[in-house]
Amino acid sequence: MAGKLSFASDYMEGAHPQILRRLAETNMLKTAGYGLDEFSASAKEKIRAACGTPDADIFFLVGGTQANAVMIDAILRPWQGVLSAETGHINTHEAGAVEFGGHRILALPHRDGKISADTIRATVRTYQQDENRDHTVMPGMVYISHPTEYGTLYSLAELKEISGVCRENHIPLYLDGARLAYALACPENDVTLRDLGECCDAFYIGGTKCGALFGEAVVIPRHGFIPHLFTIIKQHGALLAKGRIAGIQFDTLFTDGLYFSIGRTAVEAADRLRKALTEKGYSFAFHSPTNQIFIVLDRSAAASLSEKVEMGFWENTEDGRTVLRLATSWATQTEDINALIDVL
Amino acid sequence: MAGKLSFASDYMEGAHPQILRRLAETNMLKTAGYGLDEFSASAKEKIRAACGTPDADIFFLVGGTQANAVMIDAILRPWQGVLSAETGHINTHEAGAVEFGGHRILALPHRDGKISADTIRATVRTYQQDENRDHTVMPGMVYISHPTEYGTLYSLAELKEISGVCRENHIPLYLDGARLAYALACPENDVTLRDLGECCDAFYIGGTKCGALFGEAVVIPRHGFIPHLFTIIKQHGALLAKGRIAGIQFDTLFTDGLYFSIGRTAVEAADRLRKALTEKGYSFAFHSPTNQIFIVLDRSAAASLSEKVEMGFWENTEDGRTVLRLATSWATQTEDINALIDVL
Amino acid sequence: MAGKLSFASDYMEGAHPQILRRLAETNMLKTAGYGLDEFSASAKEKIRAACGTPDADIFFLVGGTQANAVMIDAILRPWQGVLSAETGHINTHEAGAVEFGGHRILALPHRDGKISADTIRATVRTYQQDENRDHTVMPGMVYISHPTEYGTLYSLAELKEISGVCRENHIPLYLDGARLAYALACPENDVTLRDLGECCDAFYIGGTKCGALFGEAVVIPRHGFIPHLFTIIKQHGALLAKGRIAGIQFDTLFTDGLYFSIGRTAVEAADRLRKALTEKGYSFAFHSPTNQIFIVLDRSAAASLSEKVEMGFWENTEDGRTVLRLATSWATQTEDINALIDVL
Amino acid sequence: MAGKLSFASDYMEGAHPQILRRLAETNMLKTAGYGLDEFSASAKEKIRAACGTPDADIFFLVGGTQANAVMIDAILRPWQGVLSAETGHINTHEAGAVEFGGHRILALPHRDGKISADTIRATVRTYQQDENRDHTVMPGMVYISHPTEYGTLYSLAELKEISGVCRENHIPLYLDGARLAYALACPENDVTLRDLGECCDAFYIGGTKCGALFGEAVVIPRHGFIPHLFTIIKQHGALLAKGRIAGIQFDTLFTDGLYFSIGRTAVEAADRLRKALTEKGYSFAFHSPTNQIFIVLDRSAAASLSEKVEMGFWENTEDGRTVLRLATSWATQTEDINALIDVL
Repeated sequence: MAGKLSFASDYMEGAHPQILRRLAETNMLKTAGYGLDEFSASAKEKIRAACGTPDADIFFLVGGTQANAVMIDAILRPWQGVLSAETGHINTHEAGAVEFGGHRILALPHRDGKISADTIRATVRTYQQDENRDHTVMPGMVYISHPTEYGTLYSLAELKEISGVCRENHIPLYLDGARLAYALACPENDVTLRDLGECCDAFYIGGTKCGALFGEAVVIPRHGFIPHLFTIIKQHGALLAKGRIAGIQFDTLFTDGLYFSIGRTAVEAADRLRKALTEKGYSFAFHSPTNQIFIVLDRSAAASLSEKVEMGFWENTEDGRTVLRLATSWATQTEDINALIDVL
Repeated sequence: MAGKLSFASDYMEGAHPQILRRLAETNMLKTAGYGLDEFSASAKEKIRAACGTPDADIFFLVGGTQANAVMIDAILRPWQGVLSAETGHINTHEAGAVEFGGHRILALPHRDGKISADTIRATVRTYQQDENRDHTVMPGMVYISHPTEYGTLYSLAELKEISGVCRENHIPLYLDGARLAYALACPENDVTLRDLGECCDAFYIGGTKCGALFGEAVVIPRHGFIPHLFTIIKQHGALLAKGRIAGIQFDTLFTDGLYFSIGRTAVEAADRLRKALTEKGYSFAFHSPTNQIFIVLDRSAAASLSEKVEMGFWENTEDGRTVLRLATSWATQTEDINALIDVL
Repeated sequence: MAGKLSFASDYMEGAHPQILRRLAETNMLKTAGYGLDEFSASAKEKIRAACGTPDADIFFLVGGTQANAVMIDAILRPWQGVLSAETGHINTHEAGAVEFGGHRILALPHRDGKISADTIRATVRTYQQDENRDHTVMPGMVYISHPTEYGTLYSLAELKEISGVCRENHIPLYLDGARLAYALACPENDVTLRDLGECCDAFYIGGTKCGALFGEAVVIPRHGFIPHLFTIIKQHGALLAKGRIAGIQFDTLFTDGLYFSIGRTAVEAADRLRKALTEKGYSFAFHSPTNQIFIVLDRSAAASLSEKVEMGFWENTEDGRTVLRLATSWATQTEDINALIDVL
Repeated sequence: MAGKLSFASDYMEGAHPQILRRLAETNMLKTAGYGLDEFSASAKEKIRAACGTPDADIFFLVGGTQANAVMIDAILRPWQGVLSAETGHINTHEAGAVEFGGHRILALPHRDGKISADTIRATVRTYQQDENRDHTVMPGMVYISHPTEYGTLYSLAELKEISGVCRENHIPLYLDGARLAYALACPENDVTLRDLGECCDAFYIGGTKCGALFGEAVVIPRHGFIPHLFTIIKQHGALLAKGRIAGIQFDTLFTDGLYFSIGRTAVEAADRLRKALTEKGYSFAFHSPTNQIFIVLDRSAAASLSEKVEMGFWENTEDGRTVLRLATSWATQTEDINALIDVL
């Protein structure tokens, strides 16, 4: 906790101070449970407005794996699986939560963490043309994340193309926005919340990694698209008794545009870092314009840097080098960036 | 929210002010995720000490249904079911979360929300003597709650007897302590945390209904009793990224005995209420000495009282009357009790 | 196998000789797998005709528990459970197969193994009127068996009333016909296959206990009612590679009315037995007019009879006596009945 | 059925005539159900002797997908997945049956349908060295098939190496022997039943594709390795009421060495075919020495051959050609092979 610089992840601090303030102010008010309170109602209205989806069903869940597991289980029918980049969070770091719900992940090849409309189309076509398809798992929805697990971004054109393929084939599109605030704050990003409202059948706006103590706001643009979701959430053990605690946080995040600005610090800090890394001759695993930076080092350099800076270990490459992740966040301090640049 | 008196439940407010203070103080510190932080470590040590279980494995989960679903799934093997009072929360208000995990609830007759050692023994014996038992679901664990869903309490003698039957038959005993603080603050209660540490194979200390924003502390007295529980928790979507938010809350609740005193207000308020109700000739569905009171009214009286006071609807009796629940909590105000007594 | 008389169950022999003959005749013909062969097609046509359901979807499964587990999982959505008599086979002797699929059995009180339309209606209404219903399991289908596990029969009037309640409430009705041939051969029965075709949303015509080596014919009167059932069957490990083996058996059972006559031997033998038992002063647990007879004996009489006759142990009554089951079948021999009557 | 030559699969006929004869001879005998009969007992003794596993637990299941789903679910704990070639039957043609049971398939790269000990070792090591392994699915067992889905064979040396890696890492090895008789009859094969008894923790001896009407014999060399398997089988809907029907078939297959000779016809026919194909200049997708032959044709040749011969479509290659499968079986007739060679 002390001494060492830490860029290990974007969920190392508590919450944006404004959120704590609102929690304190409202603390002793009595409200109904399970998200049926007025704070949650207000947050939902603000999110509907921000997404341009006046009829959207909105639910607040606690975390990303939970949101993914609940929504995938709620969208798929028993004979269907979910298409995902093989690097997708559901396929790598969720301990089999999708399979626990009874479904297969149909992992697709990726480029920098992204899948393409062409890959989806080809996969669906292969299924449709397979004489033995009734013995296989049907592609039943598409999972993408934005930013991806690699910090990369879908362009609006790419998103629209994916959405188009999904709609042609009547396959819902679900987007994991765990780090969505860092996309929204990124100059390279051209995907807005309204675009998500138009292109996706369901998506979640991440809170845990974007300034909240915890919480993800699931948005289902078309009212009633998923029947009995409240009960499904309860059945998954994902219903918050004091739902207002999530509601108040999202109400705060969507007041005065906080959610749109909260990622700026992180992205600007990452930009400074990327520039410094480039100047000092570091190489990157891929171009990631948001708050995650992936650098490739040989083993000894990786070990020596790790002594001074906490980073996320990503993977060992086949040629014997190491990929490390540096993550900034809404809470990153300028002095920490300065210190890190000195260390580099 | 305004105007009407509300005794609908014990999770209508936020958190004990001391908890909010600690969250604010620690807010900008950086810590590891997933409960591997020092606040969680400190909370666990305090809970181990309070329970007299120095080697206990402890995990912080978000809510009661989640804790029950995860723990039951983690304890049972596929061919086993869980014994529970038919009034048990898992059997009534968890939307099939246990069955979602693949297990049957073997519901037992109850008395005032409690099951007896004799009933458990008889059920296990019936299974063992059944020639067709291999075609049936084996009793694999016992679920009890303390206080029960009816606000009643197991005596220490009853708990020990149940624990004895469980151990004779190698069947783990799991206790749902969603409202445990209200038992600990109740003069009639003779079951301590140390008794739970001795008698149970797993139990949870409730936070959500006992002063926290959310959170339940699962205690497994015997280290390693449940292997890979971290991964099982993740797989259930129940792993909190910022685990410290739960850790800080429990660290606060177990500092200076807060958890042992936090229920007193509620129990004293309930006592005043019970006395007033008795004096005014109300009748009770059963004797419940903790923070929940169940009164039986005829339909019109129930309707008229409901206009002035928010209560929990419990059930309609066969003879056409209505059972309503009044719940007090750590946050109940004296003036609200006074006002309620006036209304009665 | 030798010596002792056996009336333990109705699946102790192989198959009706005509079935073995057909299997032998067709043995070396080549056909497509998975039920896509011409024998299965022919059997389906005959069953459609017999049930008056020209558009019915029909699948041949291997056994009763499998048929129940697959169909209940295929019909229910995740938030729903299945209503069943507490004595229903799915609730007593299927080892938790329904829960393995993720669903709760909502067990209802029974009379002689039967549930009533009133009980179903009241249960559905209680759910609908429950303010907390979103935290509970929704009644999603009704399971009944005919004959019941107690050898009793629904009257056509009862069946129609149940069907009516189900349709009013948009709840599918599923009927387990494991021993259907013994109902069809019983003079007291007034429910025909056509009635099942009209009243049920799905049902199965039992083969295993009614003259086949194995096999149950699932009938879904309304084509397409259950989408992707072929894949669901495969996913449950219930798809027979050589589907024709089931097809040939059902084609034989539905040729020249065999299925309608095959139960007669059993019912007539049971009638003789019931008469003899009555004359000798035995008492019955309840009136069962089909091929199962339940007699109540004190322990010593039960033990002594069990030395000479294999019977099914059913249960110990609360007053210390024993209920034993005698089952006849399509294969029961007159001399065995004579010998049994001598022993009584 | 008529006219066209058919080499589409190895389960197009009924059963070996000797099996039908035994079923007919024993038809009217009465036996206990659920595999507790003397025929099943006799079959199990013969299989134990053939495998050199005197204490083995043996169960007869109905089909291959069922056997795989039941055994994988029975062996894995909730946090574990099964390692398999990406071409493994469980990963391609079982409609998500493993995931329905809650588990992930960890698909590995293959060579001609086989995985290597090195790949397994590397996968396990990667898991063990992953700092985030508690967020991932643990390798919990290994699935291989012999012959593979591509008709290829593991050598005894390869099998022993795989078994060695599994034992070092305490990971059970399970082998799918759907077509085992065709391996045992193949001159290139050096893996015996005794080798399987030594190297595997569980395997099944295929009946459905090797001369039975249906049925697979699951062998668990170490008694008690899987507790409560009977109940797990029941729970999966996989318990045959008239278990003897499977028992009699396997008793016949293991009398007078029938199982060891029954594949010879198929392998010899395949050898003639392979020779003729080679002479006529056909190219093979890979070398498969058992009863399955995979030829690569350009689209028009594939279409024209398909008009005269029923074959299994396997896949379209990236260079625009088609892989077709020709399968022989224990029932293949010499005249059909002659006719096919004429057509080629």
